[in-house]
Amino acid sequence: MSPVPSRPDALRTVLSQMGVDGFILPRGDEHLGEYVAPCAERLAWLTGFTGSAGMAAILPDRAAVFSDGRYTTQMDQQVDATAWERLHIRETPPPTWLATHGGTRRIGYDPRLISESALRPFSDAGLTLVALPANPVDRIWTDRPAAPCTPCVPQPEDLAGQSSHDKRATLAASLRDAGESALVLSDPASIAWLLNIRGRDVPYTPLTLSFAIMHDTGHVTLLVDPAKLSDTTRAWLGADVTVLPPDALEHTLRALAPARVQVDPTSNAIWFIQTLADAGATVIRKENPCVLPKAVKNPTEQEGSRRAHLLDGVAICRFLHWLDHNATRTTELDAAEQLDRFRAASPDYREESFPAISGAGPNGAVIHYRVTPGTNRALRANEVYLIDSGGQYPFGTTDITRTVWTGPDAPDNTVRDAFTRVLRGHIALACARFPTGVTGHALDALARHALWEGGLDYDHGTGHGIGSYLSVHEGPATIAPVFRPVPLRAGMILSNEPGYYRPGAFGIRLENLHLVQPSAIGEARRSFLEFEVLTHAPFDRRLIDTVLLQPDETAWLDRYHARVFERIAPHLESPARTWLEAACAPLHAG
Amino acid sequence: MSPVPSRPDALRTVLSQMGVDGFILPRGDEHLGEYVAPCAERLAWLTGFTGSAGMAAILPDRAAVFSDGRYTTQMDQQVDATAWERLHIRETPPPTWLATHGGTRRIGYDPRLISESALRPFSDAGLTLVALPANPVDRIWTDRPAAPCTPCVPQPEDLAGQSSHDKRATLAASLRDAGESALVLSDPASIAWLLNIRGRDVPYTPLTLSFAIMHDTGHVTLLVDPAKLSDTTRAWLGADVTVLPPDALEHTLRALAPARVQVDPTSNAIWFIQTLADAGATVIRKENPCVLPKAVKNPTEQEGSRRAHLLDGVAICRFLHWLDHNATRTTELDAAEQLDRFRAASPDYREESFPAISGAGPNGAVIHYRVTPGTNRALRANEVYLIDSGGQYPFGTTDITRTVWTGPDAPDNTVRDAFTRVLRGHIALACARFPTGVTGHALDALARHALWEGGLDYDHGTGHGIGSYLSVHEGPATIAPVFRPVPLRAGMILSNEPGYYRPGAFGIRLENLHLVQPSAIGEARRSFLEFEVLTHAPFDRRLIDTVLLQPDETAWLDRYHARVFERIAPHLESPARTWLEAACAPLHAG
Repeated sequence: MSPVPSRPDALRTVLSQMGVDGFILPRGDEHLGEYVAPCAERLAWLTGFTGSAGMAAILPDRAAVFSDGRYTTQMDQQVDATAWERLHIRETPPPTWLATHGGTRRIGYDPRLISESALRPFSDAGLTLVALPANPVDRIWTDRPAAPCTPCVPQPEDLAGQSSHDKRATLAASLRDAGESALVLSDPASIAWLLNIRGRDVPYTPLTLSFAIMHDTGHVTLLVDPAKLSDTTRAWLGADVTVLPPDALEHTLRALAPARVQVDPTSNAIWFIQTLADAGATVIRKENPCVLPKAVKNPTEQEGSRRAHLLDGVAICRFLHWLDHNATRTTELDAAEQLDRFRAASPDYREESFPAISGAGPNGAVIHYRVTPGTNRALRANEVYLIDSGGQYPFGTTDITRTVWTGPDAPDNTVRDAFTRVLRGHIALACARFPTGVTGHALDALARHALWEGGLDYDHGTGHGIGSYLSVHEGPATIAPVFRPVPLRAGMILSNEPGYYRPGAFGIRLENLHLVQPSAIGEARRSFLEFEVLTHAPFDRRLIDTVLLQPDETAWLDRYHARVFERIAPHLESPARTWLEAACAPLHAG
Repeated sequence: MSPVPSRPDALRTVLSQMGVDGFILPRGDEHLGEYVAPCAERLAWLTGFTGSAGMAAILPDRAAVFSDGRYTTQMDQQVDATAWERLHIRETPPPTWLATHGGTRRIGYDPRLISESALRPFSDAGLTLVALPANPVDRIWTDRPAAPCTPCVPQPEDLAGQSSHDKRATLAASLRDAGESALVLSDPASIAWLLNIRGRDVPYTPLTLSFAIMHDTGHVTLLVDPAKLSDTTRAWLGADVTVLPPDALEHTLRALAPARVQVDPTSNAIWFIQTLADAGATVIRKENPCVLPKAVKNPTEQEGSRRAHLLDGVAICRFLHWLDHNATRTTELDAAEQLDRFRAASPDYREESFPAISGAGPNGAVIHYRVTPGTNRALRANEVYLIDSGGQYPFGTTDITRTVWTGPDAPDNTVRDAFTRVLRGHIALACARFPTGVTGHALDALARHALWEGGLDYDHGTGHGIGSYLSVHEGPATIAPVFRPVPLRAGMILSNEPGYYRPGAFGIRLENLHLVQPSAIGEARRSFLEFEVLTHAPFDRRLIDTVLLQPDETAWLDRYHARVFERIAPHLESPARTWLEAACAPLHAG
């Protein structure tokens, strides 16, 4: 029997010592990021649940783990039902559950792990919330791993495209304009962008975990384990960056009082706001000002992304060729590893930008499927196989999904109809031109129109932002059914990934990355934007019902395939090159 | 010289007597509606400006009239520049103008003419606002017309589709559920819907100006000039409706205290909130609960709309046939009157649902053009003519726009390209199927996609709601670039009216009304909606570049035209019938 069931009880004892009846444990770390270091996997340690989004809530007599529909099955497999209720986070929101079962009890939370925005629903539910001075899980997690300490390295200017000095000067000027003396950053991707540094503290995203205070002078106080910084990196940071150890954070924040200090209440833990307010500083709540300039790639970053996508395209095309000959002699795990090997043939490849989703047959219908030895499935003849993966290169981050038919027979009409509708949506978005000022939400329906026509849809967004050798999921813009008031801007990189999932049968997703570009079209009185497609890899023609394509769509696909061949073929040897030529031939030619 | 310039000075004298330095005068009346009675045309009387949206602000040493881009030219023509600055309401918002020029002065407002929501930007701008006990304009407008007093008549249940008793029972139950004892309504369209009554107090919309208090018992207190009610109407209202004269309003509101009273802070004047709060009632701010059920037409209202559109389609087709033979022998005014005569041939026709927009050549590019004897233009050979009009029938309200080519030569490619893109957008929206939960905002881009592809766009929404023998512009849903969190629902009627306007040259708009319907398509796990096209009239094939249409689009147009002919032809005599047959023939047939 695993020791997991005893952990909630051990935690209850600590909570009682700390003077509270209950506790809220989110999944994130002090940086509220998507990927966390092993030492911050408190939710997994306490409950067994390893999904990328979730929360636990514990009361004296009951406890629950919450996650969303992507993880229902995984929760059931990983979480002990005798100790925990397993609940859907939207159907039974944790604040509601706590208000129902906790009544007027004192509920503790770790103010370093939750943002003010995320805490609000709990206070709105009328709970009695108590900020705890330390995390109670850490008291009982005796073999908790050490915090990561990987080298922090410079991101040279020929890759970053703008000096940290210039970025800081612009931010400092806007702080001065607003009469604010400092800005608090705890998002490591923002700090990586601002200081032109990268690290390896978490998987998949090249980050150095740290905090930073940006002063209106252009000076930055960087709170980071000094062991992460070589002399070269210290020199790279320069005299305007003061390095302090992380335990100096509270003192440094307090020393800012009584000035006006800018804090993003969504990307910073509420502890920052509480500490600043307690010290007498005036907290100015604003959106993190690094997010927009980080999302708008400069010309050097754009060129870097093109370079990354060329390398990535070569690896993907080699993989698709390999798969064409090995589809029924491989497994989901092997295929993903094979793709990683093709990518690793380039010396510039660093790592996957996220855990590859490699799903055959019904596994492809699990939108955020992560193959494990337990679920690993051999690819079979005549089924649909979906692979969504990406790479980190020092000059760019990639993310691509292709869906292929394993053959040897032709797919049936249901599959081809669905695939063609997904492809039509993908093409509609790819060809879109739109006036400046338009949000991604306004474009979302273009990618769904052809699916909707057939009564189909998909339960995820159409596009997310992608970093420049940074996070594969980057704000602030999305192309999604959820409205966000963020107009698309030239220089943003966004995915285009409509899909369709038939539970128990198959999943389809077709994903390219797009770079938003100014369009030459448009009358003098309004300027337009359009997409440059960055990703180079063919779509599986065996799955296309050409009769369903309108002439404009066929023309787009033929142009796209011609360009894939033109860019990738020079880097391929036959037989892969011959295979690519056939895969990229005009649709009606063969 | 007109006496208008002396009015601001006379007003300043009154303001000074009332103890304030300035005054804000919106365009709306006590009901905050789109069309107002002559007695409420204070803005026009004071400033000369007759546009449908605007505001005046007056200070001791300066005064300004504000409106939007639609009315720039009209303001310049109508408003005396020696007395008033003429300003764009978004470029120089009135609160900003008052804060800049008025400083700490006391600014009066009439609390019966402005909502709490509309007043908020003025208080946010730091102005010292004073609610005046009476409207100062009324003190100097000595020949102000009397309030309208037209007959209020029953809207029978065979047209309304649901008894007022049932509507009131539903609303009363939701009041009781929320622990609220009453609901205040000052929107006459909501009252018309709730009590199944109609009137003629304002042009274009069949309303009885009145206020109502809906009690949690299902009882309604209706505050209306009793002269508007015949014995028949009084009997129709029944014993559960108490009629009081409008001057009993304040007393009636005060008598509600100390209960919880629901008020919509956007559709009611702030005076209601102030009066209730002052009397000790608890004001519960919620969206007007009549708006959604009024927008979702019941089966009887849907059938009524189809009937109205059949009559309207016959009139429009007769008009288009007439125009085809008289295009170069008529004027904008004559053409609009001719269309009104064709509509009036039906005994069910009541009046226009809004002032027709009849614009030839460059006048068509003025989006909200209203032809006057001063601007009236003869239609010329070889130009584009746009007519946007609608009718009120006791069972439905219509709104249609067609754009035609006067001939005799073929239009040039620029015009045909733009027309075809507008048509493609119209078709894309008309064919859209979409899952329940989708908002109109999410669909807006479908109607713009083809225009955007060519670098074109239009500066107005794509669709608005339409009432059932009520307002031609009805909330809460729209299809527009502005996001509103209102999912479309089966039973709503919305317009589909993309356009394109080349200033100084021509305007194009193509408008049909759509009824939202459940779609038979869709998997079991999600339900879909689609549009039933209500409007029957051909699109001018001379303006279509068939080469630009995709096969699906041509197929839709041919199906639509075939249905127009099938529905309308039986009601036409030749030669109109023969003309319609040719206008509705398949695109590639001729």
